[in-house]
Amino acid sequence: MSADRLSSVSKEVKPESVSLSPLGTAAAPEQELLLCIFGTGDLGRSLGQRLLQTGYRVVYGSRRPHSCGPLPQGAQVTSHEAAAQSAALVLVCIHRENYDFLETLAPQLKGKVLVDVSNNLKKNLYPEANAEYLQRLVPGAHVVKAFNTLSAWSLQNGPSDASRQVFLCGTGAEAKQAVADVATKLGFTVLDRGSLSAARELEDFPLQLFPEWRLPLRIAVGLTASFFLYVVIRDVVYASVDQGKDISFRIMVSLANKVFPIVSLIMLSLCYVPGVIAAFLQLYRGTKYRRFPDWLDRWMLCRKQLGLVALGFAFLHVLYTLIIPIRYYVRFKIAASTVAQIRENRTSVFDTTTAWRGDSFYSMGILGFGLFVLLGITSLPSVSNALSWREFSFVQSKLGYLTVFFCTFHTYLYGWDRFLRRSTYKWYTPPAFMLSLVVPSVLLVLKLLLLLPCVDRSLTRIRQGWERPDLEDSKKALLA
Amino acid sequence: MSADRLSSVSKEVKPESVSLSPLGTAAAPEQELLLCIFGTGDLGRSLGQRLLQTGYRVVYGSRRPHSCGPLPQGAQVTSHEAAAQSAALVLVCIHRENYDFLETLAPQLKGKVLVDVSNNLKKNLYPEANAEYLQRLVPGAHVVKAFNTLSAWSLQNGPSDASRQVFLCGTGAEAKQAVADVATKLGFTVLDRGSLSAARELEDFPLQLFPEWRLPLRIAVGLTASFFLYVVIRDVVYASVDQGKDISFRIMVSLANKVFPIVSLIMLSLCYVPGVIAAFLQLYRGTKYRRFPDWLDRWMLCRKQLGLVALGFAFLHVLYTLIIPIRYYVRFKIAASTVAQIRENRTSVFDTTTAWRGDSFYSMGILGFGLFVLLGITSLPSVSNALSWREFSFVQSKLGYLTVFFCTFHTYLYGWDRFLRRSTYKWYTPPAFMLSLVVPSVLLVLKLLLLLPCVDRSLTRIRQGWERPDLEDSKKALLA
Amino acid sequence: MSADRLSSVSKEVKPESVSLSPLGTAAAPEQELLLCIFGTGDLGRSLGQRLLQTGYRVVYGSRRPHSCGPLPQGAQVTSHEAAAQSAALVLVCIHRENYDFLETLAPQLKGKVLVDVSNNLKKNLYPEANAEYLQRLVPGAHVVKAFNTLSAWSLQNGPSDASRQVFLCGTGAEAKQAVADVATKLGFTVLDRGSLSAARELEDFPLQLFPEWRLPLRIAVGLTASFFLYVVIRDVVYASVDQGKDISFRIMVSLANKVFPIVSLIMLSLCYVPGVIAAFLQLYRGTKYRRFPDWLDRWMLCRKQLGLVALGFAFLHVLYTLIIPIRYYVRFKIAASTVAQIRENRTSVFDTTTAWRGDSFYSMGILGFGLFVLLGITSLPSVSNALSWREFSFVQSKLGYLTVFFCTFHTYLYGWDRFLRRSTYKWYTPPAFMLSLVVPSVLLVLKLLLLLPCVDRSLTRIRQGWERPDLEDSKKALLA
Repeated sequence: MSADRLSSVSKEVKPESVSLSPLGTAAAPEQELLLCIFGTGDLGRSLGQRLLQTGYRVVYGSRRPHSCGPLPQGAQVTSHEAAAQSAALVLVCIHRENYDFLETLAPQLKGKVLVDVSNNLKKNLYPEANAEYLQRLVPGAHVVKAFNTLSAWSLQNGPSDASRQVFLCGTGAEAKQAVADVATKLGFTVLDRGSLSAARELEDFPLQLFPEWRLPLRIAVGLTASFFLYVVIRDVVYASVDQGKDISFRIMVSLANKVFPIVSLIMLSLCYVPGVIAAFLQLYRGTKYRRFPDWLDRWMLCRKQLGLVALGFAFLHVLYTLIIPIRYYVRFKIAASTVAQIRENRTSVFDTTTAWRGDSFYSMGILGFGLFVLLGITSLPSVSNALSWREFSFVQSKLGYLTVFFCTFHTYLYGWDRFLRRSTYKWYTPPAFMLSLVVPSVLLVLKLLLLLPCVDRSLTRIRQGWERPDLEDSKKALLA
Repeated sequence: MSADRLSSVSKEVKPESVSLSPLGTAAAPEQELLLCIFGTGDLGRSLGQRLLQTGYRVVYGSRRPHSCGPLPQGAQVTSHEAAAQSAALVLVCIHRENYDFLETLAPQLKGKVLVDVSNNLKKNLYPEANAEYLQRLVPGAHVVKAFNTLSAWSLQNGPSDASRQVFLCGTGAEAKQAVADVATKLGFTVLDRGSLSAARELEDFPLQLFPEWRLPLRIAVGLTASFFLYVVIRDVVYASVDQGKDISFRIMVSLANKVFPIVSLIMLSLCYVPGVIAAFLQLYRGTKYRRFPDWLDRWMLCRKQLGLVALGFAFLHVLYTLIIPIRYYVRFKIAASTVAQIRENRTSVFDTTTAWRGDSFYSMGILGFGLFVLLGITSLPSVSNALSWREFSFVQSKLGYLTVFFCTFHTYLYGWDRFLRRSTYKWYTPPAFMLSLVVPSVLLVLKLLLLLPCVDRSLTRIRQGWERPDLEDSKKALLA
Repeated sequence: MSADRLSSVSKEVKPESVSLSPLGTAAAPEQELLLCIFGTGDLGRSLGQRLLQTGYRVVYGSRRPHSCGPLPQGAQVTSHEAAAQSAALVLVCIHRENYDFLETLAPQLKGKVLVDVSNNLKKNLYPEANAEYLQRLVPGAHVVKAFNTLSAWSLQNGPSDASRQVFLCGTGAEAKQAVADVATKLGFTVLDRGSLSAARELEDFPLQLFPEWRLPLRIAVGLTASFFLYVVIRDVVYASVDQGKDISFRIMVSLANKVFPIVSLIMLSLCYVPGVIAAFLQLYRGTKYRRFPDWLDRWMLCRKQLGLVALGFAFLHVLYTLIIPIRYYVRFKIAASTVAQIRENRTSVFDTTTAWRGDSFYSMGILGFGLFVLLGITSLPSVSNALSWREFSFVQSKLGYLTVFFCTFHTYLYGWDRFLRRSTYKWYTPPAFMLSLVVPSVLLVLKLLLLLPCVDRSLTRIRQGWERPDLEDSKKALLA
């Protein structure tokens, strides 16, 4: 078959919606413009459609050329053998599980560029990377790993914000060049990751599940669990032991609404703590040219995530607060107090201080939350991209500290005279909100120190590259 | 005039803020770098400015070269005749209504590439596409349709997220190539849509008005109208007929706040129903290689929109719920009940179960809404682009089902013992919230079935390309 | 040293994770692929890493080649002299303060392309632009200003939505071309801003702090301050003077919640006023070809910002409204009224009209706010980019006017019969909310006028390029 069949294939390949001389390649030899795709699944179809739109001609290789489902308009489909022989570059869009048959195609694939776009469902499912396995099956071909980090969606619709980069690796500079050319023509930016031994790393990319969110989420879960336990003991257990009352129904809303703002405030502060630590470290060291310890680096890298998790908790706090007046418990309590007031014929007097304090408390909370939402919006990729570096740092730093200040002040107003009342300290423990004030208070004091003109001046100089003289001397002494 | 005038034009074209030998084209002939734009409207100006910035030289053709308003710095303006002769490529930025005069320019435009960037105000306004009309007016030119899908804004400011693609079509590979070169240099990705007969399709693009939102919005309107009617009859009409009371004032908030969560819950479930149907279809067919019915495909494609409309209704539900305690009606009722309690000298007893139930009900609602907002945020283009495929599917599928679960549970808690009380079924009809529970309950049960280990295993195998043996046999039998 | 050292450097430069023959440059001479970076700070490191990933080889020049901190894998580091001599293109990633030493390198830098990527901390810090200063220090080199508008982040991670453009300026077309080639390879779009005299403009870019937000923020601050003063005088001062009561506690929430919606409504209307003015101007002039006055242009350009600031105030208004029932003052007042009702043995009667009016008032507010949030979401860069021009204008114009209508109606419902009550006009001044109704009411009336069929037809014709005949005649007369 082959030769005969092939020529008939080439003739059949008359793309319908695509001009015959594709863009930008008027002079390119016919051969280069014909690409072969093995596999007619989602990925193969998406990739083929995009290639056709960009001016390539595409021939699919299929187990069942006559019943392989819908293919992009203008594509041709034939057997694997014929398809492989017709093109110099073969895109393998098949699951690794079905690679074995490629071994039998080794003669047809000899010297061809085989692009492995496969991904696995889990990490470490197989002893070797898919691309390495493919290379072992077809030793005579040049295997290049590429496109696997893109979704079928972005393959079909072209590069989008975050999916503009194609990572590739493989042996043979020319083979990689050929694949890079295709990727560039599709509108992607190419990043070469070296030899085929990098394939495993590339195959692990799409399997990552929010790696940069893990630490913040763990902190959030840890804080939530600890504080929940703490308030349950101080409220529910205490009431049950001390007064024999069952107030466990408070867990669902009242206690949750104690824990959420606490976690939110602490995590918001934790966004800004590493910056302050770094500043003091630079001041202490007298130079910015020494690396920060690893834990600080890692902390710095997850600041955005810390802040967004904190915003999530603040959002829950707001909703939990706003439903307070609809709750049965609250309505019951208010009605009971009104009834008691009448039965006991008491006259309650309006207390202006309480009104001032309560309203300030709410105002601070609302303004803090408003600013917090603003910070959240500016950390949306498309918004932060639209900001200049100076604007971004103004929002995230100046407005960020203002948010911390508002929220901390909100919490202090919540405490008010409770700090001094003995009844606050059940079982000699401070209430949870006082614990939550530790981190933000320390943070704000340290930040104030850094804003002192003399400290600020030193820091600015260090950040512009200045180093403490004795440091350079000692370094020279060391080197000498 | 012409020759004389033209030479004077070429001399005058000394762009001010642009280097004379533009980037990347040091060797290109002078002619290629000079582009002509007909029309000095918004589009013409924007396009010209961008071209100048990218290193082209631009000469405008205008009816009134001496009074055509402000043009980009560095551009030249002259009569249509002179401008046409000076450049090989003419960008026609004129409304179709004013095309006729181009017929008289046919001699000057002969052999030139004419780029039609025009759009119409409505679909099917004219019997033929603007570009085809232009080709008929100037048969000697090579008309290429391009750039019309871009806004003046993205033309002026360069490619942005969604406007990175330039669609073009036209006759003559070289003409298309020349236009594609310009587009590429402006930073756009080019998609060739074939011959000029595709022009109408391209001209219809910018006239689309949320095509993918139509079905979800229609469903939303339909559901809202039906349920509104249903609750008005069961509440207002029933009260008026049965008790002779006028409670029509409840329509504005109370009834609206019954309908919104119902529509939201149903539409949220409708996002996930097609996925479940598809899974069962694949299980039944024993293969993933057969196409889904058209209605299922269409349903799948509007899942995101269904979900966002549902989120909108959930948002309204939240706001309507939170203003409850400020309403006159609610305040009146509470005061009346307190007054009655005192006058009748009743003592109300606090019911812990009611407190638990109410608070759980609110908590589920808040958590469900919080997750729902998270889903909404991750479907913002810039956020979903930043997620890997696995992350996106984790959020939209795992978190999505969790959202459905929370919201359904929230509704069941709302029902509580009303399911069994006879008074609930006025006129023997179930209350609206019970109707809204049908779709999500069925969905959750089916999803649970799919999560059973044996079912899950079969499905995974099918999705990896496995087919039921009898199927392949029968297919072969059919083919034989 | 130099020659010897240099050769050893070239040999040492064996990038580890990067193929030796980088992409797309198989034929390029070795020299071109080696770039030199002066400075090992954040910017230098980021830029180097990205260059290495794209296939360049990088050699750093450093004061202290042996202790300059962590550098990207695969990069080489040596003295400034050796590094300068090894490459034809030197990227100067040093603060301007440390430029002086470059003077001593003049011999090594002669004929090289020096890329100045520096920025200053403030505008007008130095009499001349950094790049011009560099050129003065090293007159024999070709200084090109570039990359300074990018953040270290986008340099390291590749072009993102808003940071896709590299502005450059400099003398020498070849030098600029070389830099443009590097930028293009990194995936950026290049915009040539002409000679080195444009350097100051480019250096001022990253120092801008929300220039387009200034006017809207000033308007917001001005309106907030004036209305705050107004309501404080009418409420607090009046109560104190007239009735001798101290209601200053109302400032924190009650009065703030009067001012926020007022500012929001006025600023929302101000978004749409310039469009209406422009339409009337075009109708009056009978042409669209005359420029609008400058103030109108500036107003038009900040409409988006006006709207978003208004949305912020609306958001605060919503939160301030929703916390009303939790406030001490409100709870006290309600309890007091219930107590009074009982003590005086009054029976209060439910007023259906009040219920209707109150609920409509809340509904209008919620729907208006819902639409407003929708407008805000569609003005996120990534969302508005995904809309076609027609869709965007539908949302921003049709839905925008609907929002204005809802919010205005909401305010009228708030007024209700207060417009006619004499007690409303304390000290013969209208309440603040009435003042806030002026702009939106006028706007809606004018818009209605524009929607009249005859007016609409004229306007559409003018916007399609038609001009009033007498106008053209008079113009010709003028020219003649």
